[in-house]
Amino acid sequence: MKELILGGARSGKSRTAEQHAIDSGKQVIYIATATAGDDEMAQRIEHHQQQRPDHWRLIEEPFALTQTLQQQAAEDHCILVDCLTLWLTNMLINKESELALSVFELVEVLPMLPGDIIFVSNEVGNGIVPADPLSRRFCDEAGRLHQNLAQVCDRVTLVIAGLEQSLK
Amino acid sequence: MKELILGGARSGKSRTAEQHAIDSGKQVIYIATATAGDDEMAQRIEHHQQQRPDHWRLIEEPFALTQTLQQQAAEDHCILVDCLTLWLTNMLINKESELALSVFELVEVLPMLPGDIIFVSNEVGNGIVPADPLSRRFCDEAGRLHQNLAQVCDRVTLVIAGLEQSLK
Amino acid sequence: MKELILGGARSGKSRTAEQHAIDSGKQVIYIATATAGDDEMAQRIEHHQQQRPDHWRLIEEPFALTQTLQQQAAEDHCILVDCLTLWLTNMLINKESELALSVFELVEVLPMLPGDIIFVSNEVGNGIVPADPLSRRFCDEAGRLHQNLAQVCDRVTLVIAGLEQSLK
Repeated sequence: MKELILGGARSGKSRTAEQHAIDSGKQVIYIATATAGDDEMAQRIEHHQQQRPDHWRLIEEPFALTQTLQQQAAEDHCILVDCLTLWLTNMLINKESELALSVFELVEVLPMLPGDIIFVSNEVGNGIVPADPLSRRFCDEAGRLHQNLAQVCDRVTLVIAGLEQSLK
Repeated sequence: MKELILGGARSGKSRTAEQHAIDSGKQVIYIATATAGDDEMAQRIEHHQQQRPDHWRLIEEPFALTQTLQQQAAEDHCILVDCLTLWLTNMLINKESELALSVFELVEVLPMLPGDIIFVSNEVGNGIVPADPLSRRFCDEAGRLHQNLAQVCDRVTLVIAGLEQSLK
Repeated sequence: MKELILGGARSGKSRTAEQHAIDSGKQVIYIATATAGDDEMAQRIEHHQQQRPDHWRLIEEPFALTQTLQQQAAEDHCILVDCLTLWLTNMLINKESELALSVFELVEVLPMLPGDIIFVSNEVGNGIVPADPLSRRFCDEAGRLHQNLAQVCDRVTLVIAGLEQSLK
C-alpha cells in the first residue's frame, strides 16, 4: 500500500501518518528529509522525534530518496517519508539540475516497491500566489509532484484540523 | 452542540455560521473578537454587523474568550464566536505569555458548557509557508488550536465558495 | 450545465476542466483570459496551449468575459474559461471601477446562457492573510466571486493533487 498524506501547516498530517504506520502492523522505518539548518528547524525536528515510538528505525536522508526507498522497501516494512516538501526544498536549493529526473525516478520506481510506503507532504498551493519567483517555482514543483504521486498511490488523504479526508 | 466552522478568506464561513445559529432556534449571542484597529478593519466589522439580525445580543471580547463563554453559555443559548483567528492574533500580539494556557483552558472547558457554541476560524495553513517568523508562529498556533478544538467539537465544517463540507 | 472548477496552484484544475470539456461531447470554445505580460507568463500560456486539442477554437479575452460568453454560448457548445483568477486580476489592475458591475453581470447572465460553460479559478484564500493591501483585496474579490458563481453553477468541483472533490 502506497499512500500520500497531504495537509497544511500544523494540520496533523505527521501524526496521521504516524498512526497509519502503527496501524500497518509492520516494522516502521522513518525517513526524515529535514536538515537542522537553524534553531527553529532543530526545534521542529526534535518536536517530531519526541512524538515517535522509540523502536522505529530512523534514516536521515535529505536527497537520495528513491535510492533509500529501494534499499529499505520490503514486504514487512512500512516506510514513512516525512516530508516530501523538505526533500523538494533540499533538491531545489542544492541540486536543482537533478530535480526533474529525481521526481521522475520516484514516480516510476514507487509502484514496483514492496511493502507499505507513506509520504507526508505540505499542501502549499491554496494561498495567494507568492510574489517571489523561488516560492512560485516551489509551489509549481510541489503541485506537480503531488499530482504525479497521487496517480501512482493507492490512497491519498488530506488532513484538515487533524481530521482525515479521503481523496482517493 | 459544539461546532467549528473553518474556511479561507471570503469563503462564506461567517454567513454559514450565522445560518447555523439561526437554525438552532435558540437565543443567539454573538461574541465579536475583532477590534477596530484601522479603517479597513472597521469596515470589515461594519460589513459583518449589517448582515446580522438586530435581535442578536452582541458581546465584544478580544481576550477573555473562555470566561465569556462560561458566563453566557446556557441550554437555550447559541453562542457564535467570530472569529478565533482574531482572538489568536489579539493574544499573540498582546498577551503572548498567556496564550498556551488560554488555549488549554478553552479546550478543557468547552465540552462541559451547556447549549450550542459555534466557532468561526480562518484556514490559513494551506498556502506557502510564510517568510516572516510571526506569521509562521501564527500558522502554527492556528493549526494547533484547530486540531485541539476539532477533537472536542461535535461538528467540524469546512466552507469553500460558500459551500459546506462536513469534516466531522 | 454550468460548472466552477476550483484548485490551488498546479493542482491539475485546468487538466480536469479540459477533460470535462472533452467529456461534454460538444464543440469546445476555449476562452483564455491570460495576457503574456512577461516571459514566465508567456511560458505558462504556451504550456497550456500544448496540452489542448488543436481543433478547439481559441478566443483571447482579458476583459469582456460576459459579452464573449453571450456571443459564443450555444446549446451544442462547451465554453471553457481559463481562468477567472486572471480575468479578476486584469479587471482589478486595469478597470477597477467596472469590476463590481462586471461580476454582477456575469452572475446574472450565466443561468440564462445555453449549452455548457466551465470556469477554472484559483483557490487563493486558504493561506496566511497577505500583508499587502492589493493581494488582500484580490483575495476578497476572488472569494466573493467564487461564492456568487457557486450559487448559480450546477456543479462545483475542487481539485487537489489532480483528484476531483465534488463540492456541489
